[in-house]
Amino acid sequence: MKIAFIGLGHMGGPMARNLLKAGHSLIVFDVVQRNVDALTTVGAAAAASAKLAAVQAELVISMLPSSPHVRSVYLGEEGVLAGVAGGIPLIDSSTIDPHTARDVAAAAGDRGNPMADAPVSGGTGGAESASLTFMVGAEPALFARIRPILAHMGKNIVHCGDSGTGQVAKICNNLLLGISMIGAAEAMNLGASLGIDPKVLAGIINTSSGRCWSTDTYNPYPGVMDNVPAARGYTGGFGTDLMLKDLGLAADAARQAKQPAPMGAMAQQLYQLWSSRGAGGQDFSSIINLLKN
Amino acid sequence: MKIAFIGLGHMGGPMARNLLKAGHSLIVFDVVQRNVDALTTVGAAAAASAKLAAVQAELVISMLPSSPHVRSVYLGEEGVLAGVAGGIPLIDSSTIDPHTARDVAAAAGDRGNPMADAPVSGGTGGAESASLTFMVGAEPALFARIRPILAHMGKNIVHCGDSGTGQVAKICNNLLLGISMIGAAEAMNLGASLGIDPKVLAGIINTSSGRCWSTDTYNPYPGVMDNVPAARGYTGGFGTDLMLKDLGLAADAARQAKQPAPMGAMAQQLYQLWSSRGAGGQDFSSIINLLKN
Amino acid sequence: MKIAFIGLGHMGGPMARNLLKAGHSLIVFDVVQRNVDALTTVGAAAAASAKLAAVQAELVISMLPSSPHVRSVYLGEEGVLAGVAGGIPLIDSSTIDPHTARDVAAAAGDRGNPMADAPVSGGTGGAESASLTFMVGAEPALFARIRPILAHMGKNIVHCGDSGTGQVAKICNNLLLGISMIGAAEAMNLGASLGIDPKVLAGIINTSSGRCWSTDTYNPYPGVMDNVPAARGYTGGFGTDLMLKDLGLAADAARQAKQPAPMGAMAQQLYQLWSSRGAGGQDFSSIINLLKN
Amino acid sequence: MKIAFIGLGHMGGPMARNLLKAGHSLIVFDVVQRNVDALTTVGAAAAASAKLAAVQAELVISMLPSSPHVRSVYLGEEGVLAGVAGGIPLIDSSTIDPHTARDVAAAAGDRGNPMADAPVSGGTGGAESASLTFMVGAEPALFARIRPILAHMGKNIVHCGDSGTGQVAKICNNLLLGISMIGAAEAMNLGASLGIDPKVLAGIINTSSGRCWSTDTYNPYPGVMDNVPAARGYTGGFGTDLMLKDLGLAADAARQAKQPAPMGAMAQQLYQLWSSRGAGGQDFSSIINLLKN
Repeated sequence: MKIAFIGLGHMGGPMARNLLKAGHSLIVFDVVQRNVDALTTVGAAAAASAKLAAVQAELVISMLPSSPHVRSVYLGEEGVLAGVAGGIPLIDSSTIDPHTARDVAAAAGDRGNPMADAPVSGGTGGAESASLTFMVGAEPALFARIRPILAHMGKNIVHCGDSGTGQVAKICNNLLLGISMIGAAEAMNLGASLGIDPKVLAGIINTSSGRCWSTDTYNPYPGVMDNVPAARGYTGGFGTDLMLKDLGLAADAARQAKQPAPMGAMAQQLYQLWSSRGAGGQDFSSIINLLKN
Repeated sequence: MKIAFIGLGHMGGPMARNLLKAGHSLIVFDVVQRNVDALTTVGAAAAASAKLAAVQAELVISMLPSSPHVRSVYLGEEGVLAGVAGGIPLIDSSTIDPHTARDVAAAAGDRGNPMADAPVSGGTGGAESASLTFMVGAEPALFARIRPILAHMGKNIVHCGDSGTGQVAKICNNLLLGISMIGAAEAMNLGASLGIDPKVLAGIINTSSGRCWSTDTYNPYPGVMDNVPAARGYTGGFGTDLMLKDLGLAADAARQAKQPAPMGAMAQQLYQLWSSRGAGGQDFSSIINLLKN
Repeated sequence: MKIAFIGLGHMGGPMARNLLKAGHSLIVFDVVQRNVDALTTVGAAAAASAKLAAVQAELVISMLPSSPHVRSVYLGEEGVLAGVAGGIPLIDSSTIDPHTARDVAAAAGDRGNPMADAPVSGGTGGAESASLTFMVGAEPALFARIRPILAHMGKNIVHCGDSGTGQVAKICNNLLLGISMIGAAEAMNLGASLGIDPKVLAGIINTSSGRCWSTDTYNPYPGVMDNVPAARGYTGGFGTDLMLKDLGLAADAARQAKQPAPMGAMAQQLYQLWSSRGAGGQDFSSIINLLKN
Repeated sequence: MKIAFIGLGHMGGPMARNLLKAGHSLIVFDVVQRNVDALTTVGAAAAASAKLAAVQAELVISMLPSSPHVRSVYLGEEGVLAGVAGGIPLIDSSTIDPHTARDVAAAAGDRGNPMADAPVSGGTGGAESASLTFMVGAEPALFARIRPILAHMGKNIVHCGDSGTGQVAKICNNLLLGISMIGAAEAMNLGASLGIDPKVLAGIINTSSGRCWSTDTYNPYPGVMDNVPAARGYTGGFGTDLMLKDLGLAADAARQAKQPAPMGAMAQQLYQLWSSRGAGGQDFSSIINLLKN
């Protein structure tokens, strides 16, 4: 299939390469020439704008850093909707606020293009190994149509509901993740300072009601698990500043919905404090060091 | 074995009954006569004080509401240490602060009595069905000695380390539980208000990084799971005021250890707000209703 | 002077009337016809758009609900900049984020129109009695030029610095106000529940280091002061939802500046909780009732 | 008058000296010999215990670090109540929890000794210059009797109500102070990072609704005021760890009263975070540096 792929950064680059490997034909666009070159070297064609990439495409996929980029790439004068043919499906895999996702999808729908929001989890590792999870907000028919394509880039393709619900699922999950990681850090720090062996404590929590992904899969306390950021100085993984971005999206969404989210707000502030101390690029589980006596 | 059992409330009563069923001989004491009567009816002997219960015992077990009760039952003039023979092991299953647990154990040690702290989880249901989890802080030799006895009252007997670590494990677990339940409530509420189906959202979270006991085993959003308090109007379960007590113990322990625990402190305040609105007796997952728009 | 006045709601209406009283000639615009009628009745002329109001004006003043309104009223096709003559000064008295204030001022500057941000405090009472405080962000020359006009509507005209600093001053003041009001509520509630007379406690705080506007001028505890919202069931005054809006602006500004503001975030969540319980229209000092045992 | 003075540390030492200067006769006790020597050098007599100091006294004053010290100094075997004659008035100037203050006063009352709690504010500077503020909880008759004595050590002697209300006043004031200082820090930091001159911002806040002691008398932003800790690297003043102690007393009192105090809890955690970073000995207004981007 002829696919336009827009946004070729750390995530979009490897995702596009996996589509090439699967035999698709790609026309790519990115504002960073180096990102474009990396794809044309392996067989993609380059376009001079999102509009020109979209004009001949049978499917459009985008992977962009934030809501304003998505608005501009789809709705701008040189954007996708100005070029794409009617009926062609659109997939945005950026993590953005559900409100913008629904606005852009509605504009696309008015033009006759069905659009899905399909943010991912799994990080650059998952993008490279085609093992991402896609959380998809789309009409059932559109979901059925795009699922095989997404399966070239990910392992777990989840239908969350109609337009916007992919974004909702992602920010709700990450809201809870951001909170429970700090909870795990507080519990592990407190236990260690009160004289229990951290491995023993983790073992007890992991078979009890405090059990969570942050304790049993990604424990922030050094020495408890291998192959987690805590075992390698909090390098790699999911950066503090990325968590901060997602908690910001959750806070915005909560505000628009007039929904209190006090623990989410506090988590956001603590990651901000930690980022302000220079830890924005460390894995978010390093927050345990902010809270250490 | 001749066992002195002190404290026969909602938890201690059924625990004592399970020891009787297992063929042990019990001498019991409680300040509430009705609690004593319930045990003598089924074969226990009654004593007029903790001291008198302990005097002929081969083992002493206590299950009391708070630290001052434990101090008084063990260290008071009419207390266990005033009566018990040297070498007899002591087990306190109350949930109290680790500092008091260690103080009382040290006093017992000075008298020649090895002492374990062994708080439980599992609630009155677990006490009745002898399926409690015991978190035990004790020297290895003492742990080996008391394990078979605890096994008559519980299913999962965990050795946490030396004196006090049973309490540490329990309050650290419940600290994280109290936090992640509010996180789960915020995430579920936010998702629902943004238009995703709560069951779908729970399913996604439960296979993602937000996964925790509060979402996959005890989900607070009504309609997501059967057989949880949310499915029966938040009756039964673990009361808001009990969670408040445990977060208070965690806060005290954190303060003594000069350990920051901001999310724990915020959780404590939110359960206090909720309790102040009359929900102290509802299951703690009802906190979701405080946070609902 | 011929003044275009745009936005004639609860604040803008009385402000415009005070300019009429001072002898100025007004051309007004508002999307709500009733608001326009109220002004034409007392001598103002009406225009069909912001652009048409601005076209003959020697000065433009606006008072609008939020940032998107300000952008649209100044930068839209039917907006002020499309009609106003070069060199004419512009004053926006809306409370909005400093970023938007600076953007719009820069666009006006490009067109040759000097622009000031001049948000107010003092509420509808201050608007009616021409006793508002204006916090003005403007070049010194512009400030000198507009000060006499603002003096017809307010008593205290403060120069805060260059463009945007009027907004900065207002949101920083209200950030602190939102926090210290909750602090005052917690201190007064705690004291009363511990048995000190609230009037005595307020007297002590007001001569000590806890002293603040929220205790000595606007005490939230009923019975401590007369002529405050607490003395009349929290009617009148500054609504919970208005405080919520200003804390939202502060949160956005803090996020853009990568500045931690944990107490501000917590205050925002508590007012949101209170608003969600139906108190959005009550004076913000009613938050004391959320925190009462 | 013959006065027993117990506790001669940084505060008690200078307070006792001021009583000597006023012509009173002093019998002193402290566990630190050096503190005792400093007073005997200037004319006080020394006693070997609190009991022995109290035995010949016409009035007893104490100034101790915490609740357990107060219990032990008054109720212990070698304590004041074991030695003092009936009817002799007792004054405790320690800052402790109101519950303990009331307990000890009740025990004294049972022995026939009227007792006042009279915590101070004003720091070591105020102690030396006899300009402390005393917040006194006592029956009116006792207050009238002790007021002239307190006036030798302080300038402002405030009657707060019956027993315990002196402590209540102090912890409520410091609860609000601890909160509003962080609010002031957030507002000043945010304003500065958004480009307003901090002196201008402080000036505006100090004539507006954000005004508080922390902005107009003790501003935490360097360069805004002279003669405050912010002007001398946060040395001197009221230490972070002292604020932490008082917020701990407030938290305990709130918990016993089942009173939510979320902002107080958050303030306590932020000072704890700051203390854990080594700033426990700096003035508490240095918290502004924890929150700086």
